[in-house]
Amino acid sequence: MRSDARANRKDLLEAAEALLNVHGPTVSLRAVAQEACVGVGTLYRHFPTRRHLLTALLGQILERVDAIVDGYLADRQIPDDGPIASDGDLAQARWHRFATQLVGVNLTVAAASLDSLDRKDLPSEEMIEAAERSLMQRMEDALVRARAEGQVSEDLTGERFFTGLLTVSRPLVSQEGWQLPGQEDWMLRTYLRGLRPQG
Amino acid sequence: MRSDARANRKDLLEAAEALLNVHGPTVSLRAVAQEACVGVGTLYRHFPTRRHLLTALLGQILERVDAIVDGYLADRQIPDDGPIASDGDLAQARWHRFATQLVGVNLTVAAASLDSLDRKDLPSEEMIEAAERSLMQRMEDALVRARAEGQVSEDLTGERFFTGLLTVSRPLVSQEGWQLPGQEDWMLRTYLRGLRPQG
Repeated sequence: MRSDARANRKDLLEAAEALLNVHGPTVSLRAVAQEACVGVGTLYRHFPTRRHLLTALLGQILERVDAIVDGYLADRQIPDDGPIASDGDLAQARWHRFATQLVGVNLTVAAASLDSLDRKDLPSEEMIEAAERSLMQRMEDALVRARAEGQVSEDLTGERFFTGLLTVSRPLVSQEGWQLPGQEDWMLRTYLRGLRPQG
Repeated sequence: MRSDARANRKDLLEAAEALLNVHGPTVSLRAVAQEACVGVGTLYRHFPTRRHLLTALLGQILERVDAIVDGYLADRQIPDDGPIASDGDLAQARWHRFATQLVGVNLTVAAASLDSLDRKDLPSEEMIEAAERSLMQRMEDALVRARAEGQVSEDLTGERFFTGLLTVSRPLVSQEGWQLPGQEDWMLRTYLRGLRPQG
């Protein structure tokens, strides 16, 4: 692919993700092209159908999750968000960073895309199943470290962890009254505390 | 009100709640009458407008919350869900029962109604504000006991607790793949564990 074509493709995927996030998976392809500042013809060259677009988005999400899990497994960094008193604190800060990054991938969009209206627009069933298997495998990979470092109880599964993460990271209703300052991070921290081994 | 009129009113409110839960606050009043097996005329006699209906539903939700909080504050029962080893376990079982009952009120419906589309269909602003104040006051009432019995950290506010409860109790996307057995109760228990005092 030529470099301007690559740039267009990247812009289109970013635009699609942003719009999906707001309007759901039925957003029009025309709107995606507009948001990416490319012609509709260019969009159709890259993504002849909605299915092509959603398949590419799914692939992009999996790549990000891969990078985040790899980063967590290799993480030896000292976090810069506050003083660290012990190895336990360090492990906890890394685990919190990992979960925050996962939430940032915008998993709600992924779930919404999978839950889309029309089967013909979805990535193929085989691809969705492969994506789910891959996602769950990567969660298990991450949990190996999290368990060893005392961040989660022994019996937590990747699927359970991931489903819970989806639940706590979806935005609430738009009613202003319910938007408490720092609610998202508070919710995530509360969830992670709830996952810790008891005793 | 005559007793058959009272029965109709009750049926209508139950039907409205059930349908709102599935279709959101824009559900047609005709569908509500049908679900309640009463004529549309009867519905309009009880609830001349959508606003009247939503206002009555809001009142019903507040009454239920009142009863649940009163029940928690008066609760001296021994729970029947498993053996109790200590006073701490007993306090925890009561607190869990309280939260489960609150979730059962279907708070998502309340939040969705408040977040409805058209201001003219909503209960009046004063009424919504009064309802929110009442709700938050009752959460604070419950937290007094929960704090004293070591179930939540000292700095947890009623608003924070309630917003978190809304977040963890909303159903996830309908995708079958994400429905894990016992997920709702697991999520609630994880949330409550996360709220416990640390240290």
